[in-house]
Amino acid sequence: MGKRTDLHKKNLQTIFYPESVAIVGTNKVKGTVPGDIFTNILQAELNGVIYPVNPREKWIGSLKAYKYIVDIPDPVDLAVIVFPSTVCDRALEQCGEKGIKSAIIISAGFREIGEKGLEREEQIKAIAEKWDISFIGPNCLGVINTDPASRLNASFARKFPAEGNIAFLSQSGALCTAVLDYAQARNIGFSKFVSFGNKADISEIDLLYYLMDDEKTKVILLYLEEITDGPSLMRAARDVMEKSHKPVLIMKSGRTSAGASAAASHTGSLAGSDEICDAAFRQAGIIRCDNVEDMFNIAIAFAYQPLPKSEKIAIITNAGGPGVLTTDEAIRQGLKLAEFNEDTTGKFRRSLPTTANISNPIDVIGDARADRYHAAMTGVCQDDNVDGLFVILTPQSMTDIEKIAEEIAKVANESRKPIYTSFMGEADVAAGIKILQKHHIPHYTLPESMCKPYAATLFFNQMIKQKAERPTVFDDVEKGKVQKVVNENLESGKTYLSEFKAKEIIETYGLPVIKSGLTTSEKEAGSVAESIGYPVVMKIMSDDIVHKFDVDGVVLNVRNREEAEKTYTRIISNVQKSMPEAKIDGVYIAKQIENGTEVILGVKRDPAFGPVVMFGLGGIFVEVFKDVSFRVAPIDKESAVNMIKEIKSSKMLLGARGRKNLDIDSIADAIMRLSQLALECPQIAELDINPLIVLEDGQGCFVADTRIILTN
Amino acid sequence: MGKRTDLHKKNLQTIFYPESVAIVGTNKVKGTVPGDIFTNILQAELNGVIYPVNPREKWIGSLKAYKYIVDIPDPVDLAVIVFPSTVCDRALEQCGEKGIKSAIIISAGFREIGEKGLEREEQIKAIAEKWDISFIGPNCLGVINTDPASRLNASFARKFPAEGNIAFLSQSGALCTAVLDYAQARNIGFSKFVSFGNKADISEIDLLYYLMDDEKTKVILLYLEEITDGPSLMRAARDVMEKSHKPVLIMKSGRTSAGASAAASHTGSLAGSDEICDAAFRQAGIIRCDNVEDMFNIAIAFAYQPLPKSEKIAIITNAGGPGVLTTDEAIRQGLKLAEFNEDTTGKFRRSLPTTANISNPIDVIGDARADRYHAAMTGVCQDDNVDGLFVILTPQSMTDIEKIAEEIAKVANESRKPIYTSFMGEADVAAGIKILQKHHIPHYTLPESMCKPYAATLFFNQMIKQKAERPTVFDDVEKGKVQKVVNENLESGKTYLSEFKAKEIIETYGLPVIKSGLTTSEKEAGSVAESIGYPVVMKIMSDDIVHKFDVDGVVLNVRNREEAEKTYTRIISNVQKSMPEAKIDGVYIAKQIENGTEVILGVKRDPAFGPVVMFGLGGIFVEVFKDVSFRVAPIDKESAVNMIKEIKSSKMLLGARGRKNLDIDSIADAIMRLSQLALECPQIAELDINPLIVLEDGQGCFVADTRIILTN
Repeated sequence: MGKRTDLHKKNLQTIFYPESVAIVGTNKVKGTVPGDIFTNILQAELNGVIYPVNPREKWIGSLKAYKYIVDIPDPVDLAVIVFPSTVCDRALEQCGEKGIKSAIIISAGFREIGEKGLEREEQIKAIAEKWDISFIGPNCLGVINTDPASRLNASFARKFPAEGNIAFLSQSGALCTAVLDYAQARNIGFSKFVSFGNKADISEIDLLYYLMDDEKTKVILLYLEEITDGPSLMRAARDVMEKSHKPVLIMKSGRTSAGASAAASHTGSLAGSDEICDAAFRQAGIIRCDNVEDMFNIAIAFAYQPLPKSEKIAIITNAGGPGVLTTDEAIRQGLKLAEFNEDTTGKFRRSLPTTANISNPIDVIGDARADRYHAAMTGVCQDDNVDGLFVILTPQSMTDIEKIAEEIAKVANESRKPIYTSFMGEADVAAGIKILQKHHIPHYTLPESMCKPYAATLFFNQMIKQKAERPTVFDDVEKGKVQKVVNENLESGKTYLSEFKAKEIIETYGLPVIKSGLTTSEKEAGSVAESIGYPVVMKIMSDDIVHKFDVDGVVLNVRNREEAEKTYTRIISNVQKSMPEAKIDGVYIAKQIENGTEVILGVKRDPAFGPVVMFGLGGIFVEVFKDVSFRVAPIDKESAVNMIKEIKSSKMLLGARGRKNLDIDSIADAIMRLSQLALECPQIAELDINPLIVLEDGQGCFVADTRIILTN
Repeated sequence: MGKRTDLHKKNLQTIFYPESVAIVGTNKVKGTVPGDIFTNILQAELNGVIYPVNPREKWIGSLKAYKYIVDIPDPVDLAVIVFPSTVCDRALEQCGEKGIKSAIIISAGFREIGEKGLEREEQIKAIAEKWDISFIGPNCLGVINTDPASRLNASFARKFPAEGNIAFLSQSGALCTAVLDYAQARNIGFSKFVSFGNKADISEIDLLYYLMDDEKTKVILLYLEEITDGPSLMRAARDVMEKSHKPVLIMKSGRTSAGASAAASHTGSLAGSDEICDAAFRQAGIIRCDNVEDMFNIAIAFAYQPLPKSEKIAIITNAGGPGVLTTDEAIRQGLKLAEFNEDTTGKFRRSLPTTANISNPIDVIGDARADRYHAAMTGVCQDDNVDGLFVILTPQSMTDIEKIAEEIAKVANESRKPIYTSFMGEADVAAGIKILQKHHIPHYTLPESMCKPYAATLFFNQMIKQKAERPTVFDDVEKGKVQKVVNENLESGKTYLSEFKAKEIIETYGLPVIKSGLTTSEKEAGSVAESIGYPVVMKIMSDDIVHKFDVDGVVLNVRNREEAEKTYTRIISNVQKSMPEAKIDGVYIAKQIENGTEVILGVKRDPAFGPVVMFGLGGIFVEVFKDVSFRVAPIDKESAVNMIKEIKSSKMLLGARGRKNLDIDSIADAIMRLSQLALECPQIAELDINPLIVLEDGQGCFVADTRIILTN
């Protein structure tokens, strides 16, 4: 894999910056994909040579056409294949023979059409591997590079976008056309624009690593319908963030389960649980976007303005209402309205009219002209309590809109604080907005829309500053022993491990299991109870009995040896009466923990992201309120502690009602060990610890019950 | 009040349809408010006569100017006053003398500037009352009526909107200009457009009642910064809904508390708690909007399309991704993707290509032209399982955008199901969108944005069908007795009523209070306990003791007369030991209810909406999860039951874990009685019943503890 990743990175450079391109399977028919792609490449004025390849034409668009790729006399960097899917394999084979290492396969008719297409896709993958070719596609719109050093438009998009520092990658070709149109209307340019389709060879991960080092790209946008390799995606986004400080924004469809099934029916993708996706993205510093508008709203904040230092913003407006609406949304997004220092307030008192509101949000009043905006903006820019600036304008009859826009651009140019704007309305403010866009001041139609992008840039800035997660790897675990138990059970066809076996496994990974033993005689019960220490709980052990309480198979509060012996006999006889046919393994005796709080730990294996560890408080907290937190493994100490603290009911753990704090560290340790177990033993499909009984700080926690479901 | 309301309704007709208008205080200076208003009225070609009034000019805009209003020789219907605020009182007085009954006061400088302005506002209100004048304003942008029968533009807005069936009312003038611009860009027209400013005389309530009967208006939009009379607003919206089936959409700023304080600083308004506002709006069938875009997204759905019968929608798209994103949002908004009947599926199999996805969402594939959209649309329109239709288009090179738009308009015209659209992109789809707008097909830039408007129309349709809330008025209550207790306490300076007094009050309103008695001797304790029945709880009664448990002043599980007598003595001696200085009233004895579930009821008085009743489960449910529901009083049976069922933890009441249902009816009864008490006794500022102990179905509930806070 590593080898092909390096290969892709090298070959992607050729895909984006080819000096010669063969358009394989193009034709003369305008309005068809093969014809339009040729026109697009030609019209974009590629910095390089184009070779049309068509078995039946002598020339296309006045360019000499070649029958086969191998007929081209000169070396070719990139092949853009637009042949029907049935002959793509032969075309790619010829690319190999010709020594071409980079290809874009536009053609549809592969995996997305079912069994037959999947076969074809496997074929071209094999050919690519054989010849060390890297390709984008199949089933895609193509690739655009606006860099003047290349000016490649190997796509059938309707338009060639402006140059910019935003890269856009999309699994859906249809969305690309809408995105290009949307961006053009807002004067948003792109560095690279890639529709990667079925990603049979080059994936979004490869593209992320390429763009990490692409000097023209500052922000990376990605539209995904399926996540095939969540951990790699997380690692790539984190690498990009840490090494190049570029944010990765992802729009992932399939948020709800019905949405997910729609995704399945149209791309054959398996959507993972959406909450897990949210959590995984946050862990990796990825910013998740809800829709195209949301994505570009956030993208321009990253692309055009510096990252903010803190959540403290100032709002400047010439109308009270929008100021209030924006304040509402700012608070909802976790931002704060800065309190100005006295110096600033003094300045405002001198420079703004008495009717103006000089506290935050600053209302410069409806008749404000550029001078008043200038005074307000420079005032807050010089105030150390302010780290970001939202400027709102409503078009009144005296508002000098364009002058204000110029003023904003000037102030932004001189300031290191991010400045966002919202000129409300449409036609009246259009010229002003154009000026803002020209100067790369983020503009939002709705003033409230300034808040989420600010929150996103703040989140990203905090993530960059955090040191990379380097989870503890415990070496006091016995991986081999666990593997042995797991294999034995799987071989004998058992996939459900109940309490006893499951405890053995987690104990091997250092989780604190309550002292216990299985006993098969009255006498043994007495001595085992004695060795455990009182009080103990005694329960019937039988694979045939699921509800132990119902057969009077559980006794609590056993306090001495004599009681333990009598209880053994009583339990056995109770069960023999209620379920004479049950095969009894014995009576299980365990230490009874008193005054503990019950929490739940769990492991789930997400199809996209792998093992996920879940934490919650026991009982109704999980059942009724779904009050749980989770993280994708591996989990470091800080994340484990955050998991515990971020549930709503965490108050119950942290000294609620005058009680002492519970032993958070011991829960965190259990979470990290579970995370390691889940990663090292992929046969564990699900694991529940319910309950984990937690004592006061310093006194640890104990697994009271657990079960594991295995998978082959 | 009633009299003035009727007056306003009559005078509003003259405000919107005047045959003669005096512009009082206008001048010749373009670019000023007094000058621009004159130009606006003149240019809009009012269906009537205009009279400029200015003490210093002979003519304005070639029209003869009058020195004073009273100098105008003919009768005048409407005065538009643009004089400085200092002379508005004299102008209005002259209106009265001249017999003018309707006025619009544009001028600022009233309540919004503080004490002095407030005085001026009171003055003009008094003058209006004296002369039976109704006026809009002061401090507003003015009034627009697009009806060709009037064509009034008595505003300083930059543009005169197109005719339409949406009315817009706004407390903020600045927002109006942005709204006009926004609407124009989307070809949205208005029936009436009113900036009502400080609403010193005519309020949004009066405008709602006027628009209820306005034939040109189908949908009413309202932007509010403060709600002064919540109950009247709710009643007006409900009346409009029930009598004219017109929805009221309100954008109310100040959602968060910081937002609210910004509102306070700029309009002097008192913002009520936001959750209460949400609940009150829902109760009244009001649709709350988050921002301008949200408001118009919903407005055009109401204005242009029929109301949907059910939540079952069909999505038609030519691109998978947007279909998935829309499905996600639809589910989130409570909609459902319809399952097509076999007949429909059969049709699709015949008319759509095999690569198309013929289940919902229907993917007609990127190369779809109008014929395929037509087949899909007519198919779902004929399917009884579908009640609404979302059509998505992404511009591919072969997409015949305008033809598809025409096709949609044709199908919508013939169908009684609401059809919404989203043509993604900008420039490429602009001509198509124009066609849709011309035919009144709601269009949304983002496909996801179709979902919330659909949910809103569905909600409204359900509200219309519900019978109006006619809350039970219990006549077994003793209003007089409660008033006496309340007055006595207030007169003696007591505003906090603890358990004993508070119980007396709620018992008088028929709430089931646990049997109890205050005892002052061992013997009495024995006999009272005897009469109550065992087990009983015994507690010390003393105003000096807040934490009764801490002084060993509470004993549970007292099971017979002898125990009761001994316990009396023990409690008294315990307390005398711990707090010798405490003044003891006696020992309070109450029936101990076993196996009950504790719930909480409360009453809070919201500054905007009046008494609100709150319900929740006891303990951590309220403390940690804030899992409560509430309604503005009065509350009918159905609402009370819904309140109980809508909390997240309602499972705990409804037979969770194999238990029987609790007595929901008895809780509902208690809620309704509390609601009546709160309305009939306005001195009750707060009331808590904590806990109300609820037994199994049929066995009732009992108030165990309660407290009341009074206010003068």
